[in-house]
Amino acid sequence: MGRVETNGRRKRATVKDVATEAGVSRGTVSRVLNGQPYVSDEARAAIDAAIAKVGFVPNRAARSLVMQSSQAIGLIVHEPHSLFVEDPNIGSILLGANAALSDADYQLSCLIADSQRDIDRLARYLSGGLIDGVIIVSARVGDPITRAVADLGLPAAFVGHPRDIGEAAYVAIDNRAGAREITTRLAATGRSRIGMIAAALDRDSGSDRLAGFVDALGNRFDPQLVERVPFYSYSDGQAGMRALLQRSPDIDGVFASSDAVAAGALDVLRDAGRVVPDDVGVVGFDDSSWALRCDPPLSTVHQPADELGRAAARAVLAQLRGEDPQAGGRVLECPVVWRGSA
Amino acid sequence: MGRVETNGRRKRATVKDVATEAGVSRGTVSRVLNGQPYVSDEARAAIDAAIAKVGFVPNRAARSLVMQSSQAIGLIVHEPHSLFVEDPNIGSILLGANAALSDADYQLSCLIADSQRDIDRLARYLSGGLIDGVIIVSARVGDPITRAVADLGLPAAFVGHPRDIGEAAYVAIDNRAGAREITTRLAATGRSRIGMIAAALDRDSGSDRLAGFVDALGNRFDPQLVERVPFYSYSDGQAGMRALLQRSPDIDGVFASSDAVAAGALDVLRDAGRVVPDDVGVVGFDDSSWALRCDPPLSTVHQPADELGRAAARAVLAQLRGEDPQAGGRVLECPVVWRGSA
Repeated sequence: MGRVETNGRRKRATVKDVATEAGVSRGTVSRVLNGQPYVSDEARAAIDAAIAKVGFVPNRAARSLVMQSSQAIGLIVHEPHSLFVEDPNIGSILLGANAALSDADYQLSCLIADSQRDIDRLARYLSGGLIDGVIIVSARVGDPITRAVADLGLPAAFVGHPRDIGEAAYVAIDNRAGAREITTRLAATGRSRIGMIAAALDRDSGSDRLAGFVDALGNRFDPQLVERVPFYSYSDGQAGMRALLQRSPDIDGVFASSDAVAAGALDVLRDAGRVVPDDVGVVGFDDSSWALRCDPPLSTVHQPADELGRAAARAVLAQLRGEDPQAGGRVLECPVVWRGSA
Repeated sequence: MGRVETNGRRKRATVKDVATEAGVSRGTVSRVLNGQPYVSDEARAAIDAAIAKVGFVPNRAARSLVMQSSQAIGLIVHEPHSLFVEDPNIGSILLGANAALSDADYQLSCLIADSQRDIDRLARYLSGGLIDGVIIVSARVGDPITRAVADLGLPAAFVGHPRDIGEAAYVAIDNRAGAREITTRLAATGRSRIGMIAAALDRDSGSDRLAGFVDALGNRFDPQLVERVPFYSYSDGQAGMRALLQRSPDIDGVFASSDAVAAGALDVLRDAGRVVPDDVGVVGFDDSSWALRCDPPLSTVHQPADELGRAAARAVLAQLRGEDPQAGGRVLECPVVWRGSA
């Protein structure tokens, strides 16, 4: 829906577009939208046809005629149920975004996309003008929400950097460099059989962390020592560690692709009678609240989740002020934090 | 804002109220709201005065003239930053509500209230007509958000049961009965010095759990064995357990008022060389994802968080359909789940 601009992106249609298309005044369009009398049947028919043709969504128009803006920004979390509950990073991103928007007197509205039905409804909701812009967390390549936001021309910023977001603003960390650095450090503790529990390979973060692991090990890389699991979750960490122990009982180092994954791996290693870090060194990624609760405390890569949320919020606010329409991406530091687990 | 009804509650003012007050037609009011010409200065002045007098919020009106509804329901979480990230119950309530609303093709919008600034902005946002109703989680007695929702006459349901919500719909568990039952069960394992880490005493859930603990112990209750902490958090569980151990080294049983609190207590007991359950029996409350990750797995009270969210969503949807305006409360079962920690 919406008219196609010369740059190939679509803009939301306005009352003015409807009026131009129908050959009537804006006042006549809004009289029809508001259900008022004294409009000819011909004008009414022309307006109905114009609304359909330009893809106009009346809800937004009625509101914007009065207020121009909802003063609300959506934060879209595209995650399966369990992850939203379990991943403290998402909460930290949410709270960082809330803090930055609150300073600017914008309301944050967190929108969950779990099922296909959620995604379809969310696309309709975004077109309704009830929010002024969006922050998108954990999008995948080919994500239907990414497409809907681009079609609507909504001000948007991504947390993370899916490959197919074009010129859209994003705030990310260099997952590949972080993974490379912590794997190198793990190898430097004298481990020779280093494996990885690689989660979320359908996201840029997951595939980049695996790439960094491969970079670091070079010709010492053994694909047999990589276990692929769907999610950054405790239970997938348990499953991944069990599989690695069974396949390669001589494993002496593990890069778990998130702290929750590492926590699951640590519990399986303890149950198997392996001492960490003496028998097996384990490192994670995120430096979330999981890391300090691990026993021993987890060596990991620090992800500035709160600041990712704040920076993404500021990028959307800048677009709403008409600044930096092509600002592109920003990459934040993610240093290694070395503790007791390796 | 809004006119006062005979039952003492306030209703949101409508375009009709403005028209009646100003002595003009509804069409004239909406022409003024939409910035259209051909309205006399006298009518314009009368409408401005009427808008101020009846407390009319034009944003909502403009929208409702066209669509009548936003098809969005807010879920308000009134929690300090850290808790939202750490408490899996809130995530489960959110996802349960999302599932029920999704079935009815409503969009869930999660709204965080952390600072006073958030609360003020949220009250304005709620008055703007961008959401049709609200689910309120973790409200306190005297909560300004509760007041704002009542003033606006928004369809609403509470998760939990603050004392001052009048006739409003709520879905809750019987925290007092659950706490009584698990404390009785803990005492039956032969413990004689049973303490409690009592969190969130400013909420109905926190004060009810303490009341149930006191009920269960009867004249064996010793106030010296209760440590009060602010939040249902892991770190407050650690702090509470350290204080109890220092004050009463002979303690042999602990009721932690949430699973996260219990997880913190377990780690402090382990560091202090106390074996659970042999030396000290520990029980929690919630049966959240924390409980199974505890070592040993936690005996606790099952809180049906997902169903609390679903039921609250259904209560708001029923109000939007005009059903059960005075439906009142619903109390769900919360059975004890006995595992290895006591």
